[in-house]
Amino acid sequence: MDPRVLRAMATPVIGHLDPAFLAVMDDVSQFLRQVFRTRNEFTLPLSGTGTAGMEAVMVNLLEPGDEVLVGVAGYFGQRMAEVARRAGARVQTVEAEWGTPLDPDRIEAALRERPARVVAFVHAETSTGVLQPPGPIVEVAHRHGALAVADCVTSLGSVPVEVDAWGLDAAYSCSQKGLGAPPGMAPVTFGERALERIRSRKSPVQSFYLDMTQLMAYWGDGARDRAYHHTAPISMIYALREALRLVLEEGLEARWERIGRVHRMLVAGLEAMGLRMLVAPEYRLAPLNTVVVPEGIDAAAVQRRLLDFDIEIASGFGPLKGKIWRVGFMGVNAEPKNVLSFLAAFETALREQGLRLEPGAGLAAAAAAAG
Amino acid sequence: MDPRVLRAMATPVIGHLDPAFLAVMDDVSQFLRQVFRTRNEFTLPLSGTGTAGMEAVMVNLLEPGDEVLVGVAGYFGQRMAEVARRAGARVQTVEAEWGTPLDPDRIEAALRERPARVVAFVHAETSTGVLQPPGPIVEVAHRHGALAVADCVTSLGSVPVEVDAWGLDAAYSCSQKGLGAPPGMAPVTFGERALERIRSRKSPVQSFYLDMTQLMAYWGDGARDRAYHHTAPISMIYALREALRLVLEEGLEARWERIGRVHRMLVAGLEAMGLRMLVAPEYRLAPLNTVVVPEGIDAAAVQRRLLDFDIEIASGFGPLKGKIWRVGFMGVNAEPKNVLSFLAAFETALREQGLRLEPGAGLAAAAAAAG
Repeated sequence: MDPRVLRAMATPVIGHLDPAFLAVMDDVSQFLRQVFRTRNEFTLPLSGTGTAGMEAVMVNLLEPGDEVLVGVAGYFGQRMAEVARRAGARVQTVEAEWGTPLDPDRIEAALRERPARVVAFVHAETSTGVLQPPGPIVEVAHRHGALAVADCVTSLGSVPVEVDAWGLDAAYSCSQKGLGAPPGMAPVTFGERALERIRSRKSPVQSFYLDMTQLMAYWGDGARDRAYHHTAPISMIYALREALRLVLEEGLEARWERIGRVHRMLVAGLEAMGLRMLVAPEYRLAPLNTVVVPEGIDAAAVQRRLLDFDIEIASGFGPLKGKIWRVGFMGVNAEPKNVLSFLAAFETALREQGLRLEPGAGLAAAAAAAG
Repeated sequence: MDPRVLRAMATPVIGHLDPAFLAVMDDVSQFLRQVFRTRNEFTLPLSGTGTAGMEAVMVNLLEPGDEVLVGVAGYFGQRMAEVARRAGARVQTVEAEWGTPLDPDRIEAALRERPARVVAFVHAETSTGVLQPPGPIVEVAHRHGALAVADCVTSLGSVPVEVDAWGLDAAYSCSQKGLGAPPGMAPVTFGERALERIRSRKSPVQSFYLDMTQLMAYWGDGARDRAYHHTAPISMIYALREALRLVLEEGLEARWERIGRVHRMLVAGLEAMGLRMLVAPEYRLAPLNTVVVPEGIDAAAVQRRLLDFDIEIASGFGPLKGKIWRVGFMGVNAEPKNVLSFLAAFETALREQGLRLEPGAGLAAAAAAAG
C-alpha cells in the first residue's frame, strides 16, 4: 500500500455520526462515483469484503423464487450462483470453459428459454485471468428485460469500468486490489432500475446488515439526518478515501495505461521465456496474469522459492489447480522495476526446477516492451 | 484508541494466506478465547461490525420456520428479533420496559407455552444502559432445551463476560467498545451445542459471507490448509490483535475494576449534581451510563455544547429519544481525569441551559468516590 494510505489508517478515530466524519463519507461516495464512472446516487462502500458486496447485490435484487441467470466461467461465477441460491432465487447458469469468456449468444438463448429478472456475470474473473467484454451481455440482458449485474472485484481501478456507459444496473468491487486500500470494504453502486426493483420488493431483504435501503439512510446525500444503521469502520473509510484520492490524482486513464504497460512487459517476458499464457490475448485481464505451468514443473515449489525474494504469486483454483500461476500487478505494485524483479526470480526458480531457459531472454523482452 | 493500536493499523499488509499472517490469526483467536472466558474452538473475529456478528449468530443457528424467543428491552433486542425474522424464523418476544432488565420468569412462562430452539437476549443493552444478569435466562433456556445466545457488544472487555461459566451457547461482540480496537470486526464464539445445531441443519446458511462452517475452514486451528473463503481485513486484524494484547496485559479483572471505578465516580458526581440515572443501581452497565434529561432542558443543545470541549455523548433511541443522554467510558477513555473533565463541561452546559446547580458539587463527589 502507498504510505499515505497506511498513514490514513492510523488517523485517530472519531464518532461515526460526527459531522467531521460525515464529510469524509461524502468524499468517499463522490470519489467512488468517479472511479465507477457513474452518476448513481446509491454508491458507497459496504462494511465487508468483496464477497459481502456480491451478497449485498444478490440479496437486495432477488426475492425467493426469482429467476436469475449467472454466467459461470470460473470460481467467482460459481460463487455468484451459490450466493443467489442462498438468497432463495432459482438459478440457471450458462457456463464457459475456465480461461475463456462467456458467450453472449448462449446467454441470449438461455434467456429466450427461461427469462430471468437478473443476469449476473464476472467482469474480471480472478480465478482465470479473463476480462469479460461487458457490452454484449448487458445488451442481451436488457433486451430480455433483466437487470445486468457485474462483479468488478479485480477490474475496478485497474482497467476501464464504465458503469453508466455500459448500462450496468449494479456492480461491486473490493478495496484492496485496483484501488490500493486495505482489504475490508466493498464499494457498490446501484442504478435507477435496480433501485426500482428494490423498492418494489414484496419481502424484506434477508440480510439486515446488507440492506441497501437502510444503508442509504446513513450514507445518502439526501440523508442529512444520517440514520444509524451500524457503526461504520471509520479507519477503513479514512484509508479508502486516501486510496481513492491517489487513484484520482494519478487519473484513471493514466492508471489503466500504467497497469496495461506493466502487463505487456510481463507477457513479453514470459513468452520470451517460452511460457504460455492461459488466456487468449483479447481477453487477458491486465492486473491478473495467468501463466500455464510447464509440463513436469512443481508449481508449489516455484511459489515457495519466490517467497525467498518476498514475491508472492497465487496458485490456480478448482480445475486449474496446479495448472496455472496467477501473477498480480495492481495498485502501487504495478511498476516496471517489479516486473523485472519478478521475471528474474521466476527464471531462477524455474531453472532450479529443471526447466531449460535461455538466460536473460525474458528480462530483455520485458525491457524492450517497456518502450 | 491506544497509540499501539493505531500503529498496528498502519502495519504494511501481507497476503491473507501468508504463513506469517496465519500466526497473527492464531493469536487473535487465542486472545479472544481468553477475553470471552471460553475454551470454544469456534472463536474468531468476523469481517464486519457487531451487527454482522448478530446476523451471523442468527442465520447460522436458525433455519426457516424455527422458533426463537428474543428478549426485548431496548433497541438492540428489537434488532435481534428483526434479524431473526429475516432469517425466516418464527419469533416470539418477551418485552420489558426500556431501562429495566428482562424477567426470566416471564421468559420461562413464554417457553412453557411455546418452546423455542434458541433464546436470545442482550447482555448489555446499549440503548438503555441496562446490564442483564445472564445466569437465570441461560438456566431457563437450557431447562427448556433451547440454546442461549447473548449480545455482548457493549459488555465484552468492560464488565465480566463468562461464556463457559454462564453456559452461553453463542455470543458476539464488536471490536471498538470494550476491546479498544477500531470498529469493523465482530468477535463471535460458538459452543459445542451450537455447533451440533449447525451441523444438523437441513438447509444451507442463507448468508455465504457469514457461513460459520466455511469461516472455520479458514480460521480454525484444525484447518491447516486454510481454505480460502474471503480476503481477511488484514489491517483490522493486526489492530485487533494489538488491542487484545493490551486488554490481556492490563488483565481482565483489573480492567473491569478500572471501568467500575470510573463508573462509580461518574454516578457519584451526577447524583451530587441532582441528576438521576435511568437504571436501578443493580442493573447499571458500567461502561455506558444513561442519565435522565432534567425537565425543561434541551438535550441536543447540551450535546452540541459538549462538542466545543471535544466531548461527544450520545442521545436516546426510540422511546428514550430526548429523554436520556448516554455517556460512555470504555477502553482507554475510562480514566478518572476524563470523568472530571466530562463533569466540568457537563455542569457548564447544564448551567448555560438554565439548570440550577451547586457549583463544583459534582466534581467534589466524583473526586471523593475515586478513593
